Amino acid sequence: MTSFDVIGGNARGGTLYGIGVGPGDINYLTLRAAALVRDVDVIAFFAKRGLQGNSRGIVDPLIEKGRPELRLEYPVTNEIPPEDPSYQEQISRFYEESVETLSGLLRQGKSVGLLAEGDPFFYGSFMHIWRRLEASFPIEVVPGVTGMSACWTRANAPITWGNDVLSVLPGTLDEDQLRRRLTETDAAVIMKVGKNLAKIRRAVDAAGLLARAIYVERGSMPGERIMPLSECPDGDGPYFSMVLIPGQGRRL
Amino acid sequence: MTSFDVIGGNARGGTLYGIGVGPGDINYLTLRAAALVRDVDVIAFFAKRGLQGNSRGIVDPLIEKGRPELRLEYPVTNEIPPEDPSYQEQISRFYEESVETLSGLLRQGKSVGLLAEGDPFFYGSFMHIWRRLEASFPIEVVPGVTGMSACWTRANAPITWGNDVLSVLPGTLDEDQLRRRLTETDAAVIMKVGKNLAKIRRAVDAAGLLARAIYVERGSMPGERIMPLSECPDGDGPYFSMVLIPGQGRRL
Ligand SMILES: C[S@@+](CC[C@H](N)C(=O)[O-])C[C@H]1O[C@@H](n2cnc3c(N)ncnc32)[C@H](O)[C@@H]1O
Ligand SMILES: C[S@@+](CC[C@H](N)C(=O)[O-])C[C@H]1O[C@@H](n2cnc3c(N)ncnc32)[C@H](O)[C@@H]1O
Repeated sequence: MTSFDVIGGNARGGTLYGIGVGPGDINYLTLRAAALVRDVDVIAFFAKRGLQGNSRGIVDPLIEKGRPELRLEYPVTNEIPPEDPSYQEQISRFYEESVETLSGLLRQGKSVGLLAEGDPFFYGSFMHIWRRLEASFPIEVVPGVTGMSACWTRANAPITWGNDVLSVLPGTLDEDQLRRRLTETDAAVIMKVGKNLAKIRRAVDAAGLLARAIYVERGSMPGERIMPLSECPDGDGPYFSMVLIPGQGRRL
Repeated sequence: MTSFDVIGGNARGGTLYGIGVGPGDINYLTLRAAALVRDVDVIAFFAKRGLQGNSRGIVDPLIEKGRPELRLEYPVTNEIPPEDPSYQEQISRFYEESVETLSGLLRQGKSVGLLAEGDPFFYGSFMHIWRRLEASFPIEVVPGVTGMSACWTRANAPITWGNDVLSVLPGTLDEDQLRRRLTETDAAVIMKVGKNLAKIRRAVDAAGLLARAIYVERGSMPGERIMPLSECPDGDGPYFSMVLIPGQGRRL
């Protein structure tokens, strides 16, 4: 048995904790995150309709039955494209309502832990809550292992060597921009693959990088799949997928 | 007391563990890293001459007196510039010798945990050991919270929003390249600041980004300092320092 009693939770009432829960495997939670998950009065998390909520799923082994939880359910998921003004309006309204609920709990003196996949301040939904509350309540953000760290680790692919430049690119960029940015970098991580997989593959190929590109699905989660991008089946990738182009900088 | 007895260490003999120990604060160690630090037969770490070794310092609270340790001491530090062939030669020889020592322990059936700051596969010295041993011994790499995650968290500066492109740039790039790459990205992290601080500031200023740039020294470590880059005193930064340019992508 291993116990970390030196490192306490000690969640304070009236404080919001933005808890980075890491990329998927519960072993990749930080000590601080694990202690807070056990200690906060209320566990809050985002979830898509009909699903458990990925971040909530990750910490499941640490949460006993009956703990107070706040499920914040997205009003829209894939039905409307994110560029659509009505998507943005619905999402903004959803964040406003979530903030009202969270503020209510914080004003009652509760400590609230809002779970965030990976690292909260790296493309995280948590940031949209954080920016609305940071002037009004004490907030502690707990950094986490990012999805990309888990993916390059599991793929056995050190991402940057020596003086390599790393570009993190959202797969939502248009094909030409993706290609151009890929030709100008030493190493790359392409996030938000999903429906953009075919376009991403064309851009990687056009940049002459297909031989080096690795596709990782659900890195460190159940159902993980890792393969050369060139061998990846056609069709969309799942939400949790990314493409890695490891750097080739100085080997010492 | 909080105990994580569900999540065991169980280091296997003859296996090399590349243990990401996170950015500095021991609370940001992962459960897997903490369990392995306690469980491996030998704790190995890199250190500069005359210093404790930063990664070793981070996990100090988890290591009882008398545990077998292997200190791998760099032959050169700042005396020779890294571009000098004699630097590269000395460092390569050092890695070769380290690999011999580590192989000896692994062949004796010991489990060895080699500590790595932040995430081992992100600009890590560990990678130079890994590439020499991966064909010969079982290796498990444990991803960690990166220095940059700690820095943007502590600086209260979410780094990427919406479709922001993030560029991670080594401060060793020449001034013109730094400036050019900064003008072409939405968000940036400049690593390896140290002696490059004055040059980096000029490049950030020339790119018109000085007002947004944040300087972080020793993020989450004792002696942490965070300030606008524009207010940062002249002179070199320490080894553990970086510059952040947070993105300004879509707020929802
Ligand atoms: C909205 S971003 C959130 C990133 C998260 N905050 C982090 O630190 O990794 C979601 C994207 O991250 C990537 N991602 C995160 N975790 C992943 C994992 N375990 N495996 C594969 N991709 C992952 C996917 O590309 C996904 O579309
Ligand atoms: C050789 S790289 C190692 C990076 C490490 N593997 C990681 O995942 O963060 C060393 C550089 O990382 C940056 N760095 C790492 N940890 C840091 C911290 N806690 N505070 C400030 N800078 C840090 C500094 O720029 C330093 O020069």
